[in-house]
Parts: sequence; C-alpha cells; structure tokens
Amino acid sequence: MIKVLFSAQPKSWAEYEAPLRAAFAKAGIDAQLGTESDPADVDYIVYAPNGPVTDFTPFTKLKAVLSLWAGVETMVDNPTLKVPLCRMVDHGLTESMVEWVTGHVLRYHLGMDKFLSGQDGVWRAGTAAPLARDRKVCVLGLGALGAACAQALARLNFEVHGWARSPKDVEGVTCHHGADGLDDALSDADMVALLLPDTPATENVLNARSIGLMRRGSFIVNPGRGPLIDDDALIAALDSGQLAHATLDVFRVEPLPNEHPFWAHPKVTVTPHIAAETKATTASEVIAENIRRGEGEEPLLHVVDRAAGY
Amino acid sequence: MIKVLFSAQPKSWAEYEAPLRAAFAKAGIDAQLGTESDPADVDYIVYAPNGPVTDFTPFTKLKAVLSLWAGVETMVDNPTLKVPLCRMVDHGLTESMVEWVTGHVLRYHLGMDKFLSGQDGVWRAGTAAPLARDRKVCVLGLGALGAACAQALARLNFEVHGWARSPKDVEGVTCHHGADGLDDALSDADMVALLLPDTPATENVLNARSIGLMRRGSFIVNPGRGPLIDDDALIAALDSGQLAHATLDVFRVEPLPNEHPFWAHPKVTVTPHIAAETKATTASEVIAENIRRGEGEEPLLHVVDRAAGY
Repeated sequence: MIKVLFSAQPKSWAEYEAPLRAAFAKAGIDAQLGTESDPADVDYIVYAPNGPVTDFTPFTKLKAVLSLWAGVETMVDNPTLKVPLCRMVDHGLTESMVEWVTGHVLRYHLGMDKFLSGQDGVWRAGTAAPLARDRKVCVLGLGALGAACAQALARLNFEVHGWARSPKDVEGVTCHHGADGLDDALSDADMVALLLPDTPATENVLNARSIGLMRRGSFIVNPGRGPLIDDDALIAALDSGQLAHATLDVFRVEPLPNEHPFWAHPKVTVTPHIAAETKATTASEVIAENIRRGEGEEPLLHVVDRAAGY
Repeated sequence: MIKVLFSAQPKSWAEYEAPLRAAFAKAGIDAQLGTESDPADVDYIVYAPNGPVTDFTPFTKLKAVLSLWAGVETMVDNPTLKVPLCRMVDHGLTESMVEWVTGHVLRYHLGMDKFLSGQDGVWRAGTAAPLARDRKVCVLGLGALGAACAQALARLNFEVHGWARSPKDVEGVTCHHGADGLDDALSDADMVALLLPDTPATENVLNARSIGLMRRGSFIVNPGRGPLIDDDALIAALDSGQLAHATLDVFRVEPLPNEHPFWAHPKVTVTPHIAAETKATTASEVIAENIRRGEGEEPLLHVVDRAAGY
C-alpha cells in the first residue's frame, strides 16, 4: 500500500482530508493517507511549506513532493529535497486568476471607477470607452496562470503582449522574451498584469525605468507576487501621473500592515490576496493524478525546474 | 450611378461622410452620396430616425433603408416604409457591448465594489469569489448582441442561460425560449443581463414576478432598453434585498433626469448610455457591403423582421 503523508497546517488537513480520499478512490489509488507516518515508509508528501516537515532527509523512500501551493519559491532552495517537486496547477486556481485579472483589466478599460464613485446626477454622454482592440495589455509571465490570462484577454480582442524569460507561444498573444523583449512588451502598454514567479531575476521588474516605458496614465494589476514591484517607484509613478491606478493583491508583507501607504493612496486598490485560490476538490484530483502517474512510472505533471527556481 | 441619401443629424454627417466615402471606394461602389437629393432618384437611404426623412412615399426608386442604429423600434411602424429595412450590426458596437457586459458581470462576480469603496486598512482574508462556473448568468435576448455577450461569458466558464422569443443555438449557452423558457432562464440566476429589443412583448419583462424568480441577492445589468424593466418593481426589489445591485445604462427617459431616484439609490449604478456605440469606420463598411449586395442582387444583411418589430 502507498503511504502518503500530508504535511501542511491543521486547517488544511481539515479542508483536504475528505477531497483527497475521494480523489484517491476515484483514481483507484489504494493509499494510506495521514498527517503522521514513519518517515522511512513515506512514498509521497502532500506539502505546504508552513507544515511540520522542513527536513526531507529521513524520507528515504520518498518518490515525490506534491505541493499544495502554486508558488514554490520557499521550497526550491531546500537542500534536503532530492526528489521531484511538483507545483500545484489547479484548474480552479487558474480559472479564478483569469476571472480576477480579466475583471480588473475590464474595470480599467471601461473606466468603471469614475461611474461607481460619481453618481451625482450628471449625465456624462460621450464617455464610452474605446474598443479593447485599441488597448495594449502586457502580461508579464507566461506560465500556466499568465498564459491563461493573456489568452482570455486576447479573446476579448485586447492587443495582448506577453513576456517570459524563455520563448513562448500563446494563441492570440504577441510573445516576447529576454531583456530586450521585456522593453518591447511594456512599451506604450495601457495596462500591465504581473504573473511572474518571485525569483532574484524578477524582483523589482517593475521599477522607475520599466514603468516609464508604459503609456502615460496607464494601469497596473498585480495578482502575482509582491516583490515584483519596487513599491517606492510605484508610488512615485502614481503621484506623477505616469500611472493612473494600481490594483494590488499581493505584497512584500502580508497581511499588508495597516499603516502601509498603499491603503490610503487614492490611486491604489488593495485586495487581500484573493485573486486566485486553490480549491481543495480540484487540487486533490491533481495530486491523485500525479500519484497515479508516479506509480505507473509515467512522467509527473508540473515538475519544478529547480535550477530556474520555479 | 447609384444615389445614396444620408438622412440623419448634421453631426452624424460630419462623422460619417469621410468613412462612408472611404468604405464605398474600398468596396468598388460608384455612388453619389449626399444629404440632399431628388427623392425620385434615390436608391438607398442611410438612415437615422432623428434625420429629415420621415415619409418614404416620394422615394419611388428606393431599394433599401440602411439604418445607422442597432435599435429600429422607432422605424418599424412607419407605414410609408415599403422596402427592406436593415439594422446596423457593427462589429465595433458588438465588441463594445461584450466588453461592457463582461466587465460589469465580472465586477459583480468578484465583489469589486466592496474593495473599491472599502480601503480602510482592514485585511479581509478569505473573501475570494467562488468560481464563475458556480454562477448562473441569464442573458435575455439572443440577437447579435445578446448572443455575443452570452458566448463571451460562457468562455469565462459562467453557467450561461439565454432566452429569446424563438429557439436559438449559441455555443456554450443553455438556450430557452417562449414563456416557460423565460422562467427557466431566470430561475435562481445570480446575474441577469438585458439585451432584448424594446417591443410591446418585452416591456416590463423584468417585473416583480420575474425578479422574484432570481436568486435572493442577485444582480441586474441593463445595457439594452429602458422599458424592459418595471422601474418601481426594480427599486422595491433592491430595497427588500431580493436584488443586491443594478447597473443601468439605458432608461425610459434619457438623459436620466437629475431628480430620478436611480441616481441617489445606493444599490444602483447609472451609466450614460455608453455600453455600446456604433463606430463610424466599421459601420460604414457594413453599409457599403449592403449596397454592394443590393446591387449584386445578393441577400441583404441584417434585414429587420417588421412583423416581429425588430
């Protein structure tokens, strides 16, 4: 019998125990699942970095670590981890991210805020938005989440430019890569959505210089990672009018401290890391599928490239 | 040489003259285009109901009336109109409608308003939206605009139900028709978008009874026509909590009078008839294509069914 150790916070176990057992049954996996086990017996660890396991050394039989999280930055540098690490790619997470990004890009595109805050009885005719096809949207990051967002925006006719470290091909999206490609992707963008991983190479990818490439009066949405933005440069660009508004779902410190200037800034919308959530039902199916593959000696899904850091 | 009379307001002529001439040239149509002509010589009228022509009787050679407007309610009852009337179906208009409807449905889905108005420094974790696939959206009206909106929402994974007078087939959309079908489409809907024409049969389609079929705490967006909603029933449903919010772009009287209760209602967003606009460039191409078809004796596009009233 396969032994699966669940190593995450107790509240995650409460959320995941039943969906995981259901997903294993559905996939025909005969597994012993629990939160405690002799390390030498464990085949797979279902893992979150805030759980009890930090040292993988005693897990001598371990075949793979199956992350519950999409972001694996806090796992990749663990020197005791010698087996494949699989990121969570949950279609529920992808869908919620697409919905959030599309919604906020359309909010900016349609100029919604001025109507929501300006119900003053004045009929402002002639304030219709241009067409989406006349707006350049730049999506930084073309992994599973970024590519899905870019494609959804392209289907709404936005002129979508995407950027990733390495060459990508996403239907309907003009894809750029490398350092020069980043400038091309950002130049004259009306909106930028940040969906990059947090690595040393992506820290402060939006800074005074790169924000300066965007169209004056443009918009930023960040549902990716807090450190992608140089916060001081962002505030300076909002204050100068180079940026019209930013909607931020992730921050260097979360919860965002009450005294942080983002909360009070009239050109910033703070949301509490809600853009995308892993859903236990669909995530459990992904984990079951990877155990099925592991046992059948098929290639695992969503294996992290640990040299690249994501 | 074909004679084309432009009968609309002078400001429309200023907007359309150059795009129409360009579209005619591109389509290889050798036409004499102007705002005045001997009625007996006119082959086609490019038409808006607020222009000088109201009596079509003297236009003895007339082949078709090509509307500049998508809504033709004020034209269909003209007893002097004996030739085909073509509605404007402009892809720019369709696209802007899709963008507006998708944006406001996502705004409601994501609960945006509470974040936009509540930047109070409190980190409200766990307030993520459910998935779009768990929301029922009802689109009333499956003409060119309604079908395009329904399809765009279905692509974002909303559970979309559509309704039209007669049976329709729209990809990804559960289509209903007839009186019973209306109730099925509305029942337990989380959001309803109104894209019906304004006819005697559609007036007050949203009334106390039909609003009562929707899920408690649901949402309405109306970019269609003002008379589709019983305004008093709408306000009563908002006040009782049956409806959580309504975003209205069209009204029985426009501009919406300053003293109208919609302006001050905390659960209503008024927008000034901006959801969808005909764009002169693309609309001119549609008109040129219909003249080309008329001259080539091909079937005209978008001919109005005058018995049905739209």
